[in-house]
Amino acid sequence: MAEGINTDETGELIASNKVEGTAVYDTSGERLGTISNFMVGKRSGQVEYAVLQFGGFLGLGADYYPIPWSMLTYDVDQGGYVVDLDKDVLEGAPRYASDAEPDYTEDYNQQVYTYYGVTY
Amino acid sequence: MAEGINTDETGELIASNKVEGTAVYDTSGERLGTISNFMVGKRSGQVEYAVLQFGGFLGLGADYYPIPWSMLTYDVDQGGYVVDLDKDVLEGAPRYASDAEPDYTEDYNQQVYTYYGVTY
Repeated sequence: MAEGINTDETGELIASNKVEGTAVYDTSGERLGTISNFMVGKRSGQVEYAVLQFGGFLGLGADYYPIPWSMLTYDVDQGGYVVDLDKDVLEGAPRYASDAEPDYTEDYNQQVYTYYGVTY
Repeated sequence: MAEGINTDETGELIASNKVEGTAVYDTSGERLGTISNFMVGKRSGQVEYAVLQFGGFLGLGADYYPIPWSMLTYDVDQGGYVVDLDKDVLEGAPRYASDAEPDYTEDYNQQVYTYYGVTY
């Protein structure tokens, strides 16, 4: 069970700093990684991505996967987020190393959303 | 200049973990405090509040002020966010202590938005 996530999970709102670090599972209950952070539209205030952190050791060598926010569902029993994605889909998904963050251009965003079959 | 904020300020998106800790100024350039975190709609993915942290010492005794996201403007020159609020307005504003987070009910949200004169 996640310790942090429930603390600020009040009503319909969640606290960004409690979501960061929360575990992410696939639909079979296998742990995929954790949520590193959100990417938020500066003007709109809309969360476009949850960035998932997979692999590596103590953060070294980990890969970062921006996932459309709408793909994540919070599961109270597991104390984490669930995404309906197979590991082999994730293996081919857009990702970056911690020192090579993308520019999140229109083209890049289109590419990510298209990969997951989500309308941008 | 903020060191973190620009790192992930790519294109139209900002990273939640870079905004946390960023300074907040009033329109005269006076430093009011820092951004503690966001409050995000679970289903909508919409950022409803930036929570500002004012006062206290090393986080002890600080007060937390949820501010409607739309009230914040990022200022590149100052390397922080600017809100068009007088200190005396903030002194009467809805706030909470770190161990007394609100439930962000419909009533509470209405109260905060009404205080700032922003449509909820």
